[in-house]
Amino acid sequence: MQKLFEHINKYTSIDTAAFEEIISFFTIKSVSKKENIYTAESKALHHYFVLNGCIHLYFINDRGAEQTLQFAIENWWITDYLAFQNNRSSEFCIQAVEKSEILQITYQDQEELLRRFPQMETYFRKVYQTAYGAAMMRIKYIFSYSKEDIYFEFKDAFPNFVNNVPQYLVATYLGLSPEYVSKLRRKSIS
Amino acid sequence: MQKLFEHINKYTSIDTAAFEEIISFFTIKSVSKKENIYTAESKALHHYFVLNGCIHLYFINDRGAEQTLQFAIENWWITDYLAFQNNRSSEFCIQAVEKSEILQITYQDQEELLRRFPQMETYFRKVYQTAYGAAMMRIKYIFSYSKEDIYFEFKDAFPNFVNNVPQYLVATYLGLSPEYVSKLRRKSIS
Repeated sequence: MQKLFEHINKYTSIDTAAFEEIISFFTIKSVSKKENIYTAESKALHHYFVLNGCIHLYFINDRGAEQTLQFAIENWWITDYLAFQNNRSSEFCIQAVEKSEILQITYQDQEELLRRFPQMETYFRKVYQTAYGAAMMRIKYIFSYSKEDIYFEFKDAFPNFVNNVPQYLVATYLGLSPEYVSKLRRKSIS
Repeated sequence: MQKLFEHINKYTSIDTAAFEEIISFFTIKSVSKKENIYTAESKALHHYFVLNGCIHLYFINDRGAEQTLQFAIENWWITDYLAFQNNRSSEFCIQAVEKSEILQITYQDQEELLRRFPQMETYFRKVYQTAYGAAMMRIKYIFSYSKEDIYFEFKDAFPNFVNNVPQYLVATYLGLSPEYVSKLRRKSIS
């Protein structure tokens, strides 16, 4: 849980005593590969922080395939934010891509956490500001480039991002199928 | 400026005395249709709040056409968030779509505002949370539907949004050209 402590202190300032209280609002969960973390039928939607591993939010597209809408690796937050802030269930599924450890918090607990620790408002304001900025940039790439060009253009522009994330997740993030990106990469090597 | 006061009080609570100080961090600007608000060459990037009218953030695509990446009508915030939070210039342009009145604040002033008025952390946290959630939903529609279907699917799902915004902006928001949406709408009426 040290990872959350360090991540919060990258954006704002809390001491270990405050963190002990803050962490009590969360539950820790170990999930195995392909385990469902949230489905509309069975679970309450939480806000999730990845300690290690990787989880994704997806829906089933009209071809019956899983379409990843967003993913989260170490130190990333993820949920369906419109559903979460309205405290209702989501149409999406959230599932572990690989064996992962996550922290989760309910809507009510997050609201209470923010009331008790105003520094957490600063923390989430900065987390969301970055996430929103990145989403806008992602849309820029989707609108700007053809299926053939988007992967390499994105890789050139954000090498640190692309090189630290599994390539099939970069593919889905850009609206490509993992198979298509494998083909592109083979073609670029040859 | 009453509009910003009311908008802040939708999300958090500030009194008129605090608002008088808050508003002193902003400058008000009247812009005419097609007037540049921000360009990389000439202006400092601000965070913009629309009091009335409509402004958009765009880039020139490889066919030489303006591609709107985001727009803002009354009570919406807009900027290039990745550039803004890193306090650097943006590759995008921000321009008035029609005659508008806007409030603008620099990065340094917004940082100071947030230090002085922690309620504004809550306000922006909620503004960004909603904006990020909406961006994720927008990407869902872009990934899910063909060019033929996306406009009507989106209109069915978010009628209040679509009916309160000029239709050519909805078109660009979904990655379609305004001409294409006009054609679709004529076809659906006939």
